[in-house]
Amino acid sequence: MLPYVKNQQRGEIAVCGLEAVKALAEARPAAVERLFFTEERSKEFGRLASALAKARRPYRVVEPAELERLSGTVHHQGVVAMVRDAGLAKVDDALVDRWAAAGVRVAVLDRVGDDHNLGSIARSAAFFGFAAVVLSERDGAARLSTSAYRVARGALERVAVYADESAARFLRRCEGRIPSVGADHRAKDELRSLGDWPGVGRPAAVVLGNEETGLEPDTRAACSRLVRIDGAGLVESLNVAQAAAVFLYAMAPRRPKA
Amino acid sequence: MLPYVKNQQRGEIAVCGLEAVKALAEARPAAVERLFFTEERSKEFGRLASALAKARRPYRVVEPAELERLSGTVHHQGVVAMVRDAGLAKVDDALVDRWAAAGVRVAVLDRVGDDHNLGSIARSAAFFGFAAVVLSERDGAARLSTSAYRVARGALERVAVYADESAARFLRRCEGRIPSVGADHRAKDELRSLGDWPGVGRPAAVVLGNEETGLEPDTRAACSRLVRIDGAGLVESLNVAQAAAVFLYAMAPRRPKA
Repeated sequence: MLPYVKNQQRGEIAVCGLEAVKALAEARPAAVERLFFTEERSKEFGRLASALAKARRPYRVVEPAELERLSGTVHHQGVVAMVRDAGLAKVDDALVDRWAAAGVRVAVLDRVGDDHNLGSIARSAAFFGFAAVVLSERDGAARLSTSAYRVARGALERVAVYADESAARFLRRCEGRIPSVGADHRAKDELRSLGDWPGVGRPAAVVLGNEETGLEPDTRAACSRLVRIDGAGLVESLNVAQAAAVFLYAMAPRRPKA
Repeated sequence: MLPYVKNQQRGEIAVCGLEAVKALAEARPAAVERLFFTEERSKEFGRLASALAKARRPYRVVEPAELERLSGTVHHQGVVAMVRDAGLAKVDDALVDRWAAAGVRVAVLDRVGDDHNLGSIARSAAFFGFAAVVLSERDGAARLSTSAYRVARGALERVAVYADESAARFLRRCEGRIPSVGADHRAKDELRSLGDWPGVGRPAAVVLGNEETGLEPDTRAACSRLVRIDGAGLVESLNVAQAAAVFLYAMAPRRPKA
């Protein structure tokens, strides 16, 4: 198992990594319950430490070994913020209405199971201007873990993350409002054939499946289209985080031509 | 450090993971010096075991703990092959001539440092029909490690892997014969503007830089063009394995239209 460090009693989750904690400090400093960093990081996190002091919350300069214990990884890069784990906001029909009206694009994770992949996909989604990532609540789906935050390098503060009971449930909410493309390496349609579908400024959902089993049968049935990335046939498929990057690139909201 | 399990005395490297060892058994069974698997994997690797028996090389059914010790990871998936580590073949001018004449496309890794990224990029390169991956021998460049083989899921048996003393040295060999595109998130040119450059059936090199520092100055100078992937501006860059997937997709050898 990848490290998912959560202090159950306190209801906290460890966020570590330089970019991840910097983005957290900027986007939602009030979520930080406790902060720990090495001597060398003091300057970079001085401002967040001051904010914590005002709020009567603890921060402390510690040795790397303590950061490793707190975060469960050697990749903490000298800083760990313990954050209140409020759980994910749930998607509802009103939210889907707003997304449809605003023409936003969203990435849907249908039981993507590896939290490194979740973090990578969130980073790609933010990079390509997708407004939100929707996670399935079905068993086996990766959650927002310490690893996911670290690998996303701050992107999880730049995209909204929501949960729905399943990807299929979310796609049924989208019906007639937000067209969806499911990534499926056995699909007949090829990604390049989509062209600019569904067009500049129009909403869309890109759906990515589990690393081993792909899209669930009910997800497949609920997608507007199933599409594959055309390969040379030497290996069967791309890793899901790489397939996601290609789909998000191809489906990125284009700027209208001047 | 990521696990790089190499028996120095024997000059072996551990290859683990179901897909990686299956591809190895198919592509170069003679490279396997010793083979270890769990009871449950006996059927899948019976053929390779027979070949080893004929060659008077050892194979053995072992407990998972022994596989973990041999491979340095819990992600061995029940099989570890110890392979003769012959080192990488070197690029030379004659090889570049042949590549240019054959119109092959190659991926060049300019000190990509994480061996998971190396494995992912090799998988994407194989998927998109790139014939070879060229690694830099400069300090800090990832090597073909146990992790790289595992993450590539067999793709390292489907693309040729070569080394040159640096990416810049390789690109200078390509001058006038194989045009190159360097991935650089500060470039003025945007990937979509390349269109079908350099055209169906023409050779090309795609150059990817280090995770933290990007392309080396001499690499940058030696690329025919520098190109960026257009983002929304919310996060600075993609992870290199994701950027690689997008570049390889965009630059994949296209089938001529029927």
